Amino acid sequence: MAVRHYTLDLKLRAPADVSATVRGLQSIFQEQEMTETVHDSEGHGYLATFVGKNGRFAILRMHSHGLLTFDLQCLEGDEEAQVDNLLNALEKKLKTLLDGNIQRIKRLPALVRGSDVDRYWPTADGRLMEYDIDEVVYEKDSDYQNIKILHSRQFGNMLILNGDVNLAESDQPYTEAIMGSGKENYAGKEVLILGGGDGGILHEAVKLKPKMITMVEISFMRITSTTVADHQSVPVYIDELVINGCRKHMRKTCGNVLDNLKGDCYEILVQDCVPVLKKFVEQGRMFDYVINDLTAVPISTAPEEDSTWEFLRLILDLSIRVLRPSGKYFTQGNCANLTDALSEYENLLGRLSCKVDFSKEVVCVPSYMELWVFYTIWKK
Amino acid sequence: MAVRHYTLDLKLRAPADVSATVRGLQSIFQEQEMTETVHDSEGHGYLATFVGKNGRFAILRMHSHGLLTFDLQCLEGDEEAQVDNLLNALEKKLKTLLDGNIQRIKRLPALVRGSDVDRYWPTADGRLMEYDIDEVVYEKDSDYQNIKILHSRQFGNMLILNGDVNLAESDQPYTEAIMGSGKENYAGKEVLILGGGDGGILHEAVKLKPKMITMVEISFMRITSTTVADHQSVPVYIDELVINGCRKHMRKTCGNVLDNLKGDCYEILVQDCVPVLKKFVEQGRMFDYVINDLTAVPISTAPEEDSTWEFLRLILDLSIRVLRPSGKYFTQGNCANLTDALSEYENLLGRLSCKVDFSKEVVCVPSYMELWVFYTIWKK
Repeated sequence: MAVRHYTLDLKLRAPADVSATVRGLQSIFQEQEMTETVHDSEGHGYLATFVGKNGRFAILRMHSHGLLTFDLQCLEGDEEAQVDNLLNALEKKLKTLLDGNIQRIKRLPALVRGSDVDRYWPTADGRLMEYDIDEVVYEKDSDYQNIKILHSRQFGNMLILNGDVNLAESDQPYTEAIMGSGKENYAGKEVLILGGGDGGILHEAVKLKPKMITMVEISFMRITSTTVADHQSVPVYIDELVINGCRKHMRKTCGNVLDNLKGDCYEILVQDCVPVLKKFVEQGRMFDYVINDLTAVPISTAPEEDSTWEFLRLILDLSIRVLRPSGKYFTQGNCANLTDALSEYENLLGRLSCKVDFSKEVVCVPSYMELWVFYTIWKK
Repeated sequence: MAVRHYTLDLKLRAPADVSATVRGLQSIFQEQEMTETVHDSEGHGYLATFVGKNGRFAILRMHSHGLLTFDLQCLEGDEEAQVDNLLNALEKKLKTLLDGNIQRIKRLPALVRGSDVDRYWPTADGRLMEYDIDEVVYEKDSDYQNIKILHSRQFGNMLILNGDVNLAESDQPYTEAIMGSGKENYAGKEVLILGGGDGGILHEAVKLKPKMITMVEISFMRITSTTVADHQSVPVYIDELVINGCRKHMRKTCGNVLDNLKGDCYEILVQDCVPVLKKFVEQGRMFDYVINDLTAVPISTAPEEDSTWEFLRLILDLSIRVLRPSGKYFTQGNCANLTDALSEYENLLGRLSCKVDFSKEVVCVPSYMELWVFYTIWKK
C-alpha cells in the first residue's frame, strides 16, 4: 500500500503573524480530530505536527522568513475527495488569514510513495519527473543491471536500465537521430552497431537494404547502483536479458529483428564489444557506418577518476580504426543541459589517435523529457 | 528562502521488525543532535519526528504493511553535501538492517519548496514535472490571467498562463502541427488566426506568402484560478499583456511580427473574437484556413456544467461558417492521455450545424512533457 504525499506552500511577501495564523487554522484540524504536537524548532519558526485518523499525518511549518509549508501524508485507500476537501478548506482559510500577504500559492500533484508501479524517473540532469506509467511489464536483474520494461499510457512500453529511461516505443526520433537523421544512404553499406539491444536501430537499418549489419552486444561490467544518488556516471549496458525483454515487449521498436540472432543481412553477436572490435582491427575489417548505442557520455567531468571516460575513449579509438575513410560514426551524447560533460567529450574527440571532426544535433526524444545531444564524427 | 524536501522510501517484501530498525537508526539521529518525538500513530505503524539544527526536520514512518518512508526538510542554505551524507548514512544503515527484505529503494531529487523561481509545472493530465527554469523573465497579472515568461535552460523562454505551460521557444513542432504539419500551401490564401498571442503561428504564416492573415485576439473572460487544483477546465486566453511580453521575450517564436499590429499581409485585431467572427459571417467574409489557437479542449467531460464547452462549440460553429468549402480548420485538442475529453470533443464535431469530417495527429511538443493531439477539420 502506497502513501500519497500532498504539499501546499504559501510564499509570503512578509513574515506573517504566527499565532493569529495558527489560531485561525485550529478549527480545521480539530474538525478532522487530529492530535497536535507543537515542536521546539530551535529558533526556526513555528513547527507543528498532526496525527489524524486512518494514518493521516500533517506538518505545518511557518518559517520566519515568510514561507508557510504544509504536508499531508495519507494512506492509499484514503478517500481522495475528502483529502481534497481538507486541503481546499485549508487553502481557503489561509487565503483569508493572510490576505494581501500571499505572493504565491503552490499545490503540487500528490507524490505517490511506495506504490507497486513506480512512476518517478528523474532526467539525466537530475530533475523530478512523473511518468504516466500504469504497469510493470517486465522486470529482471541480470548479472549487469536491473532491467525494467514499464508501460506508459502515451509512450508505450519503456525500457528502463538501472533507473535510467533508455528508450520507449514512442522514441523513433532517437533511432532516427543516431542513424544520421535520414541524411545517409545505407543501401549496400556495411554497418556496425555497438549496443542497441532494444533492436530499434537494427529494425530501422535492415529496412534500408544495407550489405551487412553486425550488432555487438556487450556484457562485461558489473553495476550495482539502484538509487538516483548513485546513478551518476554509471554507464548503461545492454545484455541478453535486455534482448529477451525487448523481443517480447518492445515490438513496436524492434519488430521481429530480435527473434533471431542472424538474419538475411544482419548478425547479432552477444559478446563483449572490445575484443570483437580488436579482432576487426586485426583482420582489417572496415565499416561505412559505426553506430555507438552503448552508453551516454558520463555525467562526471573528472575523467581521470572515472573509468567510464577511459572506456568511452577506448571504444571511440577502436571504432574510428574500423571506420572507412568516407565513413561516419554516430553516437548519443547526453542531455543538452549537461554542458560540462558534453564539452569534456568534445575535448576527448580532439585527443584521439586519429584526427576527427564532428557535428552535433539536439533532438527531442519523446519519453526523455529533456533535449538530447547526438554526435556525428568522421575522419579528417 | 526555500526549503529542500528530501524523501527516501523503502518498499519492503514483508513488514520489518520496528524496534530493531528504530534502534539501529538511533545513532545516526543522535550524531546529528536531532530531538526525537515518537507519536501515537493510532494504530498505523511507527511514526517519529526529529528536529535538528539549522531548521532541519525529519520524519520516519514505518507502515505496518511494509513501507518505510523518510522525509528530511532542510533550509536552502543547508550544506547539500552534509545532507547527502546524512541520507547516504541512513540508506546504508537501512540496507544493513533490512537486508534481504528490501524490494525497492527510492530516493527522489529533492523537492524545492517556496523558491523565488518556481520549477514545478504539472502536465495537463496532472503529473508532477520539474523544469530546468532558472529565471523569471516577465510576470504580469492582466485583467484576465496571470502571465509568466520563464527561462528554461533547454527550451528557451516559456510562456505560462495561469500555471499552464503554453509555448516555449523550442516548440516549433506545436506551430507546425497547428498549421497542418507542412502539408498545406498557404501562398495566396486568406488565413484567420484565433488567439495565437505568442506570435508563433503568425511568424511562420507570413513566411508562406499568404494573401492576408487576420489574427484576432480575445479578452473577455475573467479567470481567477492560481493553483493546480483549480486550473481544471479553465480555458486559456491571450491578451494584450501576453503580446507585450512575447514581443519582448519570445522573439525566437514571434520574430518581429508583434512589433506592429499591421504588416504587409497581416493584421492583428485585439478584440473579442466572437463579435468579430459574427461580423465576418454577416459580411460573408470567407477564409481558406482558420487556425484556432485559443484554448485546449476542456479537461472536464461534463459539457452541460461547463461554459467552456459551450464557448468551444460557438467558436467552432462560427469558424466553420467563415471557412471556404475547400478550407481547413486547425486546432489543438489536448494531451493524448485525456481520452475522455478528446472523445467528447469529437462527439461535439458530429453535432455541429454544418457537417464536418476530421483527422487527428499526435505530436511531441518539446516543453509539454506529454504528447499533444491536434485536429484538422473540414466541411463534408
